[in-house]
Amino acid sequence: MRILSGSSNLPLARKIAEQLQLPLVETEISAFANGEKRVWIKEKLDGQDVVVVQSFSHPVDEHIMEFLLMLDALERLGARDVHVVIPWLGYSLQDKVFRPGEPIAAKVVAKLVSHAYVKRVYLIDLHNTSIPGFFDVPCSHLSANELFAANVKERFSTEEIVVASPDFGGLKRARQFAALFDAPLVNIDKHRDLTTGKVTAVGLHGNVTDKVVILIEDVILSGGTVTEASDLLKEEGARETHFFSTHGVFTGNALENISSSSIDSVTVANTISHPKLPQKIQTLDLAPMLAETLEEWF
Amino acid sequence: MRILSGSSNLPLARKIAEQLQLPLVETEISAFANGEKRVWIKEKLDGQDVVVVQSFSHPVDEHIMEFLLMLDALERLGARDVHVVIPWLGYSLQDKVFRPGEPIAAKVVAKLVSHAYVKRVYLIDLHNTSIPGFFDVPCSHLSANELFAANVKERFSTEEIVVASPDFGGLKRARQFAALFDAPLVNIDKHRDLTTGKVTAVGLHGNVTDKVVILIEDVILSGGTVTEASDLLKEEGARETHFFSTHGVFTGNALENISSSSIDSVTVANTISHPKLPQKIQTLDLAPMLAETLEEWF
Amino acid sequence: MRILSGSSNLPLARKIAEQLQLPLVETEISAFANGEKRVWIKEKLDGQDVVVVQSFSHPVDEHIMEFLLMLDALERLGARDVHVVIPWLGYSLQDKVFRPGEPIAAKVVAKLVSHAYVKRVYLIDLHNTSIPGFFDVPCSHLSANELFAANVKERFSTEEIVVASPDFGGLKRARQFAALFDAPLVNIDKHRDLTTGKVTAVGLHGNVTDKVVILIEDVILSGGTVTEASDLLKEEGARETHFFSTHGVFTGNALENISSSSIDSVTVANTISHPKLPQKIQTLDLAPMLAETLEEWF
Amino acid sequence: MRILSGSSNLPLARKIAEQLQLPLVETEISAFANGEKRVWIKEKLDGQDVVVVQSFSHPVDEHIMEFLLMLDALERLGARDVHVVIPWLGYSLQDKVFRPGEPIAAKVVAKLVSHAYVKRVYLIDLHNTSIPGFFDVPCSHLSANELFAANVKERFSTEEIVVASPDFGGLKRARQFAALFDAPLVNIDKHRDLTTGKVTAVGLHGNVTDKVVILIEDVILSGGTVTEASDLLKEEGARETHFFSTHGVFTGNALENISSSSIDSVTVANTISHPKLPQKIQTLDLAPMLAETLEEWF
Amino acid sequence: MRILSGSSNLPLARKIAEQLQLPLVETEISAFANGEKRVWIKEKLDGQDVVVVQSFSHPVDEHIMEFLLMLDALERLGARDVHVVIPWLGYSLQDKVFRPGEPIAAKVVAKLVSHAYVKRVYLIDLHNTSIPGFFDVPCSHLSANELFAANVKERFSTEEIVVASPDFGGLKRARQFAALFDAPLVNIDKHRDLTTGKVTAVGLHGNVTDKVVILIEDVILSGGTVTEASDLLKEEGARETHFFSTHGVFTGNALENISSSSIDSVTVANTISHPKLPQKIQTLDLAPMLAETLEEWF
Amino acid sequence: MRILSGSSNLPLARKIAEQLQLPLVETEISAFANGEKRVWIKEKLDGQDVVVVQSFSHPVDEHIMEFLLMLDALERLGARDVHVVIPWLGYSLQDKVFRPGEPIAAKVVAKLVSHAYVKRVYLIDLHNTSIPGFFDVPCSHLSANELFAANVKERFSTEEIVVASPDFGGLKRARQFAALFDAPLVNIDKHRDLTTGKVTAVGLHGNVTDKVVILIEDVILSGGTVTEASDLLKEEGARETHFFSTHGVFTGNALENISSSSIDSVTVANTISHPKLPQKIQTLDLAPMLAETLEEWF
Repeated sequence: MRILSGSSNLPLARKIAEQLQLPLVETEISAFANGEKRVWIKEKLDGQDVVVVQSFSHPVDEHIMEFLLMLDALERLGARDVHVVIPWLGYSLQDKVFRPGEPIAAKVVAKLVSHAYVKRVYLIDLHNTSIPGFFDVPCSHLSANELFAANVKERFSTEEIVVASPDFGGLKRARQFAALFDAPLVNIDKHRDLTTGKVTAVGLHGNVTDKVVILIEDVILSGGTVTEASDLLKEEGARETHFFSTHGVFTGNALENISSSSIDSVTVANTISHPKLPQKIQTLDLAPMLAETLEEWF
Repeated sequence: MRILSGSSNLPLARKIAEQLQLPLVETEISAFANGEKRVWIKEKLDGQDVVVVQSFSHPVDEHIMEFLLMLDALERLGARDVHVVIPWLGYSLQDKVFRPGEPIAAKVVAKLVSHAYVKRVYLIDLHNTSIPGFFDVPCSHLSANELFAANVKERFSTEEIVVASPDFGGLKRARQFAALFDAPLVNIDKHRDLTTGKVTAVGLHGNVTDKVVILIEDVILSGGTVTEASDLLKEEGARETHFFSTHGVFTGNALENISSSSIDSVTVANTISHPKLPQKIQTLDLAPMLAETLEEWF
Repeated sequence: MRILSGSSNLPLARKIAEQLQLPLVETEISAFANGEKRVWIKEKLDGQDVVVVQSFSHPVDEHIMEFLLMLDALERLGARDVHVVIPWLGYSLQDKVFRPGEPIAAKVVAKLVSHAYVKRVYLIDLHNTSIPGFFDVPCSHLSANELFAANVKERFSTEEIVVASPDFGGLKRARQFAALFDAPLVNIDKHRDLTTGKVTAVGLHGNVTDKVVILIEDVILSGGTVTEASDLLKEEGARETHFFSTHGVFTGNALENISSSSIDSVTVANTISHPKLPQKIQTLDLAPMLAETLEEWF
Repeated sequence: MRILSGSSNLPLARKIAEQLQLPLVETEISAFANGEKRVWIKEKLDGQDVVVVQSFSHPVDEHIMEFLLMLDALERLGARDVHVVIPWLGYSLQDKVFRPGEPIAAKVVAKLVSHAYVKRVYLIDLHNTSIPGFFDVPCSHLSANELFAANVKERFSTEEIVVASPDFGGLKRARQFAALFDAPLVNIDKHRDLTTGKVTAVGLHGNVTDKVVILIEDVILSGGTVTEASDLLKEEGARETHFFSTHGVFTGNALENISSSSIDSVTVANTISHPKLPQKIQTLDLAPMLAETLEEWF
Repeated sequence: MRILSGSSNLPLARKIAEQLQLPLVETEISAFANGEKRVWIKEKLDGQDVVVVQSFSHPVDEHIMEFLLMLDALERLGARDVHVVIPWLGYSLQDKVFRPGEPIAAKVVAKLVSHAYVKRVYLIDLHNTSIPGFFDVPCSHLSANELFAANVKERFSTEEIVVASPDFGGLKRARQFAALFDAPLVNIDKHRDLTTGKVTAVGLHGNVTDKVVILIEDVILSGGTVTEASDLLKEEGARETHFFSTHGVFTGNALENISSSSIDSVTVANTISHPKLPQKIQTLDLAPMLAETLEEWF
Repeated sequence: MRILSGSSNLPLARKIAEQLQLPLVETEISAFANGEKRVWIKEKLDGQDVVVVQSFSHPVDEHIMEFLLMLDALERLGARDVHVVIPWLGYSLQDKVFRPGEPIAAKVVAKLVSHAYVKRVYLIDLHNTSIPGFFDVPCSHLSANELFAANVKERFSTEEIVVASPDFGGLKRARQFAALFDAPLVNIDKHRDLTTGKVTAVGLHGNVTDKVVILIEDVILSGGTVTEASDLLKEEGARETHFFSTHGVFTGNALENISSSSIDSVTVANTISHPKLPQKIQTLDLAPMLAETLEEWF
């Protein structure tokens, strides 16, 4: 097995390679003056199994194209079975036709990956668990839940915590998460306008008074949901609010807003690489879980 | 027939639509905060033939992804035959494996287009005329030659001109071009180091003394080739140097370099949209030719 | 346009044909002694556009195979564009991998339909709105909402009604439905054990005292959800409970249970054909909507 | 290599697994209340070669769908090379367009198998030996001939036997079969009305007086052919009539008719599982041959 | 509709075009000095429906490659629906694996045709009627039977004729043919060694004394079968023997052998073009039937 | 690994097999009387990796069809990974649409190879280095350059030689070749009429007086280019002219023309098998390079 990294999340790829005690395949990824990506894999890989690690994170279209170029080069080099780890699947939130005339962008991306000489895809905590059905190659759908649960148990006393989901969609995962340390569950009822996407009303079902509230989510985008949820919980008497989100996308002023908010801490997995994150945000490493999963295959 | 434009070259799409006396299909192309493209085609197109106009110009990966999203939306809307005009085919210069371990990027792009619910592709003055063989859908390969020849005849007296190609690769096209107004041909012999791409030697075959030299090329990138060619020609006695290049990519300081060079004028077609070009560079409109070609099909 | 019906929902096909003032294509569908289906389309259809109507209802596997045989025959007959109306998409509830080692049955069915000489699929009120992304042919996703809303307005005074969803998953649709006649929304909070599928707790958010409660759902299977919801609502003071569900699958003793329950009425669309339904259950006809949609295409 | 069985012929799968000294893969195949099949493969199979055993016997459509669901699950589990043994290929008798407007059902089934993540198919004594050409995956076409010949030699003295085919179509196989023990060949000339399929005339070419007649066929359906052939042979002086047929489909009253007929014995292979067969019908086991064939591949 | 002819059977293509009152598309088919075919279609065909006529007759591989080149050119020219008439399908007799290690050549050819931008195929009197199942595009399977029957009625008095098949395989077609003029049927029982293909025994079932025997077959290869059959029939008292065979392949010395044999006449259809045939062999024209069939489609 | 040879270049296949110390797979390739190829692979190859060697040389269409039949047989036999060595890729010079209405024959051939159960293709010194992009399977593009350079060094003193390309197209390869022994480069400037292909003018850039001129080319067809180049060089003072061309196609009177020309020697690789070549032409063996390359894969 060989590990090959695109340019989107080199730190994660390096950690996976370290776990497996393998060097990364030597690769040169640059760009021509006109912005076109230039990919060069500098090792012979004929007949070898290769794992490609590439997050479809910002700038998402460049990272996708880079990925497709890498896969074409791998095919020409004669790599045998190519598995790909896509820690964050860009476009996965565009998972249906909201208004006639829209594409299903997640399906477009799934088709690109399916056509690209790929034998298996590893995805992590998808917002929509039906998305593996968009692919024409098999997907392993992994979760950061156990990593997060271990962290919760390390940091907090189980008696003082309650688990919450910031909205309905995440309730199922919150319930699975809470079950990992037998914590009670509360629910924030958030109504969104379907066209504009704006939250129009918020309510809380359950008691949080003097509790440490653990909120679990698949993704933080602008941070609006989490800061609002934290404010609501504190108003309702919560002592502390700690967010766990697999994917930290952090668009716009997300990082500033979180830093200056009532949130006590945010924990994300390292599915998306950020040069530097504010102190309030800690990152947990998925490399051991990914390495262990990959080892079963090769 | 309906005309639909991506965001890369709206002026050209508008001109084609005008030629055909058709309104552009109403479309909204925006981006989410995390940089993901959002495409919305706002009209019913079921059973209609649609022409999509999108240049794969800078930022090339975004324009390609936008294109794929548009095509997915068109398929869901039930458009009948979809033809696509790709005035500048980004990645077309990466047309072979130069070093083992490289992709054939032009093939990757051709496959993306071929998979995307497309019935026919219109391409213009490809650097490599075998590229239509990379596609699994039929391509019409068009040329700006006649448009350029008409412009030459308008501006210059045929007796005073000679035609030149700035390098070997373009000699065939230069010969075809010169034949359109019976001008003599000169040849600039430019040696490039194959690894670095740097020009290592230049020579001139033919007489240019006191002549108006018309240089014809498929694409201007950094402008280095054209400014060097112009300098050489002037040293050899040329009175004026005028460049005709279908695609004006203009990377880096190309525009400044051309403006301050010995070149008398540069003429490009409008395959790539630029907000503003310096006075020395004029743009000719391909919309009439494209409109006429499209009309034969629908 | 020609209409061709499989054996699963001949009454609906006949009604669509009547709306379009077309005869059904003459077809003979029988079975050999060993149970193999035998399909014979008795008319020439070369170059004609054909709409196939087949519900993937019980016995679902036979109806799917019959459908595939019809499509093969249509291809050999040279039908031009074949659109298929699948009023109830069997296997659509198996839309993800619940436990490792399970198939995504909905994807398997989507692939069968996608491979089978089909240009467009019409689906109705899918439980999971991402399912069109499982298909490799475009889908039109239609809804019975407007038909149901018209029926509500006819039967009830808007002031006395509240709209409810029997569970979280349907809340979005309930909200869209309630918006059609500006009714208030209540929410039944139903917790299910994820492995067993059993409901473990139920709660109500909102006031139903002395109200006529309109419940909206995509599908009724065993009827357990609806009878429990009705009991809960009546306990909480509701005057009447009326269910609207697009698909009436009615497994096991569903019909008996509904008849003897506290429910005042159940309304379903005719996506699944039943020889006879108890008095409490009324059926509304989707043929006018389908006919109108189809007419836009041909 | 792992052996996985569908629900259609578990006894054969068990015997193959025994021959290979392998346990069957643990699998749960059930149905939801609405009749939809539910498949769950309970073991990890990543990177393993898997042989699936499933007869496309009655109820044929359910067994086919179950097969497709198993294959989808195997793909998601990451099984490496999947070979499938289809001892009886349902729909294989619908192998051409008899009347315009009919499908080629055997081709439809072959396409389903070809699309379903299958590397090789094992088929047994097909009625039409061109059917492997319907598949897009390679087929191994095996025969029960040698198993049957060994049984004939065990039970009968070679001098007293003659071999017969009940109709023209089977003459080639009968000749091959007779060659295995150098027996003379007789031929029953059976005319069928092509539309109705009814036998309109029967004749015998060859002498059977006081002979033990061994009849060889690929499949027994209603048993009409074999009982008529036996009656004719007995009228012409045959002492005993023994039928060997690879596939015992036994539709309608076949079992009763055979039991009460002039036939002395019927021997079938275990390609189709029957809970209980009358005394006159014996079953021979193909598992040793299949196991031996499979062992060559893995 | 436009008619385009390959070089294998220009006379038939011209006759079809005449029937339809259309000129043939102007085409230049030549070869380079190294034997590579060079195809040039000299007319614009964008958006037009095109019928290609090409017999896969000797030299079969050249005619197949020429066909594939024509189809590629048609696709690039943008022809709309391309239907192909393959009057004689070369390789169709290699329709199964006779010995392990052999290809199914008929399937290979069917795949080539299916991949080649073809919407529908017209085939004539295939030896094996399951071959349409080898194609992935729909086939219309036509027959010369009615043309031949009309010719029989014209030339002979119905009372004096009997119909015969030279072997078992053709018995079904002979029966269908005899039914067209209510003639009695006789059967020549020809045993072939399966490996060598040599006839090892011949017998006659039925009375031919003083009769005009009409023999019907799909194809004449070396003529051995027909001359032997004629000799046998004459020995058994037949007055005249007349053969009707759709395809006259005539390998080796077939023409000489037939001329000098006891056969009174041979009639073939013009599926294969021969520069000159001996007097005993007449050719009937399928162009009217083909033209009529094609007209139904366009 | 097993080596299987078609009939086009058995000597090369035998040499590769010898290098690898493997026997060739026993195969019987013959033709039926009607000219149809008959392929029979006489060994079991299930699960084995197979290398097929077949030159697409004259008669090119027969060699291609033979190749496709071999591949179909290999698939049915269950060969695992099939790699194919195509030493001379027939039709590779028809690599673009020269005139509208022409096919891209090289693409047609590439598609045939890509569809034919092939995992990797080995090609040698293609005239157009973009042709690997026509294939949908990965290609290894090998060169005879090093073999030729070794031969040059063996035969000539480096000081006395200059390297020349007979035309522009080959200049890049000539430069790479000259770099292998640091020889100076001269250039023959040959103008061709684009429609007729006739050379209209020739010029020489560089000094060849009293030099041994080594000319390098990818392919010799009619030999016209090489004899003209030799004459020109001798006129300009060259002492000797020696041609190195990977592919010796030798059409028409090429062999006679070369023999009687001013050329001192011609060296070709054994990509195309010739029964006998004149004394002036020597053949170098590519088997060691091919064997070494293949060994890296298996």
